Amino acid sequence: MLKVPEHQVAGHLAIDGKLGPLVDDSGRFYKPLQGDGRGNKELAFYESFSSDTRVPEHIRKYFPVCYGSQLLEASNGSGLLHHLVLQDIVSSHRNPSIMDVKIGSRTWYPEASDNYIQKCLEKDRRTTTVSLGFRIAGLQLYEGKESGYWRPGRREVQSFTVYNVRSILRRFVSSNSSIGNESSDCSFAPSIYGGSAGILEQLLELKAWFEDQTIYHFHSCSLLILFDKESVSKGSTPVPVIKLIDFAHVVEGKGVIDHNFLGGLCSLIKFVSEVLSDSKESLIKDCVESEKPGICTDNGNCQQS
Amino acid sequence: MLKVPEHQVAGHLAIDGKLGPLVDDSGRFYKPLQGDGRGNKELAFYESFSSDTRVPEHIRKYFPVCYGSQLLEASNGSGLLHHLVLQDIVSSHRNPSIMDVKIGSRTWYPEASDNYIQKCLEKDRRTTTVSLGFRIAGLQLYEGKESGYWRPGRREVQSFTVYNVRSILRRFVSSNSSIGNESSDCSFAPSIYGGSAGILEQLLELKAWFEDQTIYHFHSCSLLILFDKESVSKGSTPVPVIKLIDFAHVVEGKGVIDHNFLGGLCSLIKFVSEVLSDSKESLIKDCVESEKPGICTDNGNCQQS
Repeated sequence: MLKVPEHQVAGHLAIDGKLGPLVDDSGRFYKPLQGDGRGNKELAFYESFSSDTRVPEHIRKYFPVCYGSQLLEASNGSGLLHHLVLQDIVSSHRNPSIMDVKIGSRTWYPEASDNYIQKCLEKDRRTTTVSLGFRIAGLQLYEGKESGYWRPGRREVQSFTVYNVRSILRRFVSSNSSIGNESSDCSFAPSIYGGSAGILEQLLELKAWFEDQTIYHFHSCSLLILFDKESVSKGSTPVPVIKLIDFAHVVEGKGVIDHNFLGGLCSLIKFVSEVLSDSKESLIKDCVESEKPGICTDNGNCQQS
Repeated sequence: MLKVPEHQVAGHLAIDGKLGPLVDDSGRFYKPLQGDGRGNKELAFYESFSSDTRVPEHIRKYFPVCYGSQLLEASNGSGLLHHLVLQDIVSSHRNPSIMDVKIGSRTWYPEASDNYIQKCLEKDRRTTTVSLGFRIAGLQLYEGKESGYWRPGRREVQSFTVYNVRSILRRFVSSNSSIGNESSDCSFAPSIYGGSAGILEQLLELKAWFEDQTIYHFHSCSLLILFDKESVSKGSTPVPVIKLIDFAHVVEGKGVIDHNFLGGLCSLIKFVSEVLSDSKESLIKDCVESEKPGICTDNGNCQQS
């Protein structure tokens, strides 16, 4: 039984007769192979990547597993179409908060046509891509049983400023649902951004690889960052997930590091570390100011002594 | 007594009635303030930088000392003109080999005019700026008493490919003067690129700062890299010099790291480390193959045991 993914935050949705990805109940994600060659390029990337022994094992976990391609009824009713069969990263999560962060200060690659470059450049300048080295391409934040998800529309997402991005990175790990830098409590930052299995450590692991690898240049790729807020609220500490997705514009690195991706990744890392250190500071303040001073533990609790 | 700098490898030369920088015998470098506002922007940068307490002491050594500005007879005979008075980095060296490496995969900044951006973009695509994240903007290699310097012309420099850049980074630290990847011996790599005061360590120190600093974005800046080949040949190990120069297009960082500079810097670091590790491998090979096997020391000698 194929269905439209419940938690897709960017790209075309398979609704209203449009072409889009589908998922099944066994944890697979079916992405239609786009006809302009991009689909085949992405399939070729997965084939090359999965057999490339130069990619270390600890890096493979940041990529969805690929199960090849399969002919399926397309979601727009146009008949049988080849689909890329991928691991469904999201569906196993009950109430995932998700950010799709497109990395790099340019989304075009040197070999592309002038027209394509100008189109990308225009969008890169209009969004935070040029200024920040990354842009949020889509997101949903789980706000609780009553209010459900905050999922801004495409236009709103494309108009995000640097201020908005910083604010969303705080709100992403906050227990209160109000928007804005000042009011977000960032109470999940120590357990989601911080810790040995947290987002920051994972980003740093990826960074170390990007400082060295010269196999691929990942143009217009996204980092999908997600975790289940509900389970954090209930006291357990779920491992937040980071996956690289969208490989239609990957080109060979030819012995040069992907400095475009690496620069953007470092910029994201700086933003995430700032949210984390701010939250730790305010935690220390809370501990000191509380009537029973305690010790701030690594996972962000104020342990009473 | 002002004169034309002997070892200027990029930018306009103060010859044939043209406007260019001058030097004196006391180690000062006089750079004419360009009339289109760039000169004043560079002066403003030096003033802001020198008084900014957020810049750590160990980073200041990578910037030329600035002594303010001074009215001087311009080199083109146009009369009195304001000049930026800087530390002359080069003249104290007897036979310096120099590379001027413009860092960043884009030389334009988001606030610039469309015309300016298109002009820069075109040049960035034509050179290795987009592909490598840096380009060599000028160089001179000292080849010995008889042959003097190899100093390619502006057109040749602007047509450098990725292959040429890799080759020059090898030739820069080679005792033989022939061009080409294969034939360069890289015999100075361990002492100039390697070691605790070498180029690589200095680049890594700069990188650590760029991963953190959000004060400035250094568009179209260069790293001037130089050392005295003659003194290495004579057995002493001079400390190679790295300085950041050309600050006419620096803008405020506004809380965001300079991911454009950082990405390019990481790409250069990767190239330099490859030359270094190749040279160490070939040294080990030489040691092993020699009749009296020895120990490869850190400064690249094969110490006979």
